[in-house]
Amino acid sequence: MHTQWEHRYAQRTQRMKGSAIRELLKLTELPGVISFAGGLPAPDVFPIDEFKRACMTVLEKQGPQSLQYGSSEGYQPLREMIARHTSRQGIAVTADNVMITSGSQQALDLLGKVFINHGDRIIVESPTYLGALQAWNAYGAEYITVESDEYGIVPESLAEALRTSPKFMYVLPNFQNPTGITTSLERRKTLIEMADRYGVPIIEDDPYGQLRYEGEDVPSVCVLDNQIRAQNGVYTGNVIYLSTFSKILAPGLRLAWVIAPADVIRKLVLAKQGADLHTATFNQFVAYEVGHGGFIDQHVLTIRKVYSERRDVMLDALAEHMPAGVKWTHPLGGLFLWVTLPTGMNSSEVFKVAVDKEKVAFVPGFSFFPNGGGENTMRLNFSFSNPETINEVIARLGRVLKSLI
Amino acid sequence: MHTQWEHRYAQRTQRMKGSAIRELLKLTELPGVISFAGGLPAPDVFPIDEFKRACMTVLEKQGPQSLQYGSSEGYQPLREMIARHTSRQGIAVTADNVMITSGSQQALDLLGKVFINHGDRIIVESPTYLGALQAWNAYGAEYITVESDEYGIVPESLAEALRTSPKFMYVLPNFQNPTGITTSLERRKTLIEMADRYGVPIIEDDPYGQLRYEGEDVPSVCVLDNQIRAQNGVYTGNVIYLSTFSKILAPGLRLAWVIAPADVIRKLVLAKQGADLHTATFNQFVAYEVGHGGFIDQHVLTIRKVYSERRDVMLDALAEHMPAGVKWTHPLGGLFLWVTLPTGMNSSEVFKVAVDKEKVAFVPGFSFFPNGGGENTMRLNFSFSNPETINEVIARLGRVLKSLI
Repeated sequence: MHTQWEHRYAQRTQRMKGSAIRELLKLTELPGVISFAGGLPAPDVFPIDEFKRACMTVLEKQGPQSLQYGSSEGYQPLREMIARHTSRQGIAVTADNVMITSGSQQALDLLGKVFINHGDRIIVESPTYLGALQAWNAYGAEYITVESDEYGIVPESLAEALRTSPKFMYVLPNFQNPTGITTSLERRKTLIEMADRYGVPIIEDDPYGQLRYEGEDVPSVCVLDNQIRAQNGVYTGNVIYLSTFSKILAPGLRLAWVIAPADVIRKLVLAKQGADLHTATFNQFVAYEVGHGGFIDQHVLTIRKVYSERRDVMLDALAEHMPAGVKWTHPLGGLFLWVTLPTGMNSSEVFKVAVDKEKVAFVPGFSFFPNGGGENTMRLNFSFSNPETINEVIARLGRVLKSLI
Repeated sequence: MHTQWEHRYAQRTQRMKGSAIRELLKLTELPGVISFAGGLPAPDVFPIDEFKRACMTVLEKQGPQSLQYGSSEGYQPLREMIARHTSRQGIAVTADNVMITSGSQQALDLLGKVFINHGDRIIVESPTYLGALQAWNAYGAEYITVESDEYGIVPESLAEALRTSPKFMYVLPNFQNPTGITTSLERRKTLIEMADRYGVPIIEDDPYGQLRYEGEDVPSVCVLDNQIRAQNGVYTGNVIYLSTFSKILAPGLRLAWVIAPADVIRKLVLAKQGADLHTATFNQFVAYEVGHGGFIDQHVLTIRKVYSERRDVMLDALAEHMPAGVKWTHPLGGLFLWVTLPTGMNSSEVFKVAVDKEKVAFVPGFSFFPNGGGENTMRLNFSFSNPETINEVIARLGRVLKSLI
């Protein structure tokens, strides 16, 4: 159908075009295909009884308020709860430093709206989180990529990138999406010192921080920046920190938060007013009801147990079924594991065969590289499927790879 | 606190600056002030028991799915329900023409993102809905304003505006926000014919269409466009139509929808992926559970009864308490009534005295005029407060005006 709208799209829609990866991922929805492509939490760990209790309590005690319009900043008790939670990690923030967003994706979009001029350079890891690229492409961002190894961003690569006058740097230090790599304490400190030397602020995205299955917690870049530079414990504000309820409660609520200097929060609030007025009041009341008594800390232990087992099952299955020459990361937490095929193999081709012959799917890694590369990589999710399925899928994937190597 | 972010804001944040109206409206939050400023539904009409039932049913029967990630287009059964509802009004649309948004504000933002290049001209009524201006300012929209009278947009004024090569026209034909004016059937037809002659598509915003208290329903511009131009009942697509659950269920759910040609929906879906991934799954399941059996049609009758009485009380109170020279609209539906003071009076000055001396508040009308004007106008909301309060507030406002005239 031809309409008067067709020739009226804004120039920026050119940069929002459906990507190759979207076309590929449609195949994961074919009947019978088991997909390790999504970043889905396991539905078996959603605390349904707790949600029932919370919905009833909220509707019983605060029905009218919970269904009414709310403030763009977010529900004040929830902001205060998040400020307390953050302060316990060692950054003295108040509710004025917290904004509730409709998922972390919205935080990325609003940060793009508030900070990115067309042509601005952003330092990103390569590979990096696809959602950040999707959000910032619309604002005309250019990406300066830095190399990573098993300890995080390589300092030499970062130094070069920092000299390009970037607007900011975007990092995912914990169990990175897509690689599962955790940036070491040493590298975090180096990152902060180098960023400071070049005067480049940092956006730290930490959706999985609480989901560690092995080793000791490493302080977030936001906390470390504060420890290294702050006078008397006040939040320095050079690191904007994002986190979410999606992985520790449920993504279907679309609830996340930004920690930022109060003046940045005020700008984000203006942007949010224009973007969706505010995040659903009811969901914020329910999350507060679920969270304020300490339930989430307990619940995180359950999630860790389940995901940790699934990660181990996947690691064992990979060791058993992968042909020689295939390598993978050993994530200390999070939802994803990253596989590197022998040089010259193309994971998009593998994907087609895997879906066609063995009815299994993953994300071909190239889609996480903003400036190209990664054709021989793939991302596997281990949180969503049960151990039996994980074993089965990795066995099938092994057969596919053996047939192609 | 000085941070590295301060000098890094994007140019567009200049256009998102806190407005004069925001500063004024902060005064409405002072203790003891009764405000007619917001566009709030009455909390007494929220169907709390129905929400309790729906939350329980959803969590009982579809708990894991309702808390999981969902599709950017929206929950398919809800889209189909909205398509059926729309089709009953006389436009043959399918779920492919429907996208769920996080409130109508998000629909406005995504339409801006997808269509507006910096400097694009948009035809708007003057006064018009402030939220549309807030959304589109960020994309650099310029506004061509058209004059309205009690029947809607004046054709002579529209003809002139249509000659400026506008990107699209934005109209609120039912019980307009802020004026409460309903565009007559004749004027709607004229609008469609003129827009067609100049090849200018239309965005129709209809949040209150079901809340009519008097007279016969007039078909939406979207439906009329279809009747006038369509072959065999297929949606022509020249009018993009917005509506919402905020006024017929509850705004705290943040649930609204767009009706648009399928190719526009596809672009909006790409924009939505980057903006917030998708609208809260749980809320969509709950709204479907509440709505699919016909509850909303019944519930709308309750809302109409309550708001209709409040409108009448406000109209009577205005007749009793307003000094000579003050005029107001007689809205046939919706949430708002528009007051015009004698020429030369300034409603922002009135506002300050009203808050200070009588502890009552409203929205000074100038804020709804994108290119200036309206200094002697004000918007009053009649849906939120009970009849006694409405009487009391109008009496106080009458005293303020008498003291200033």
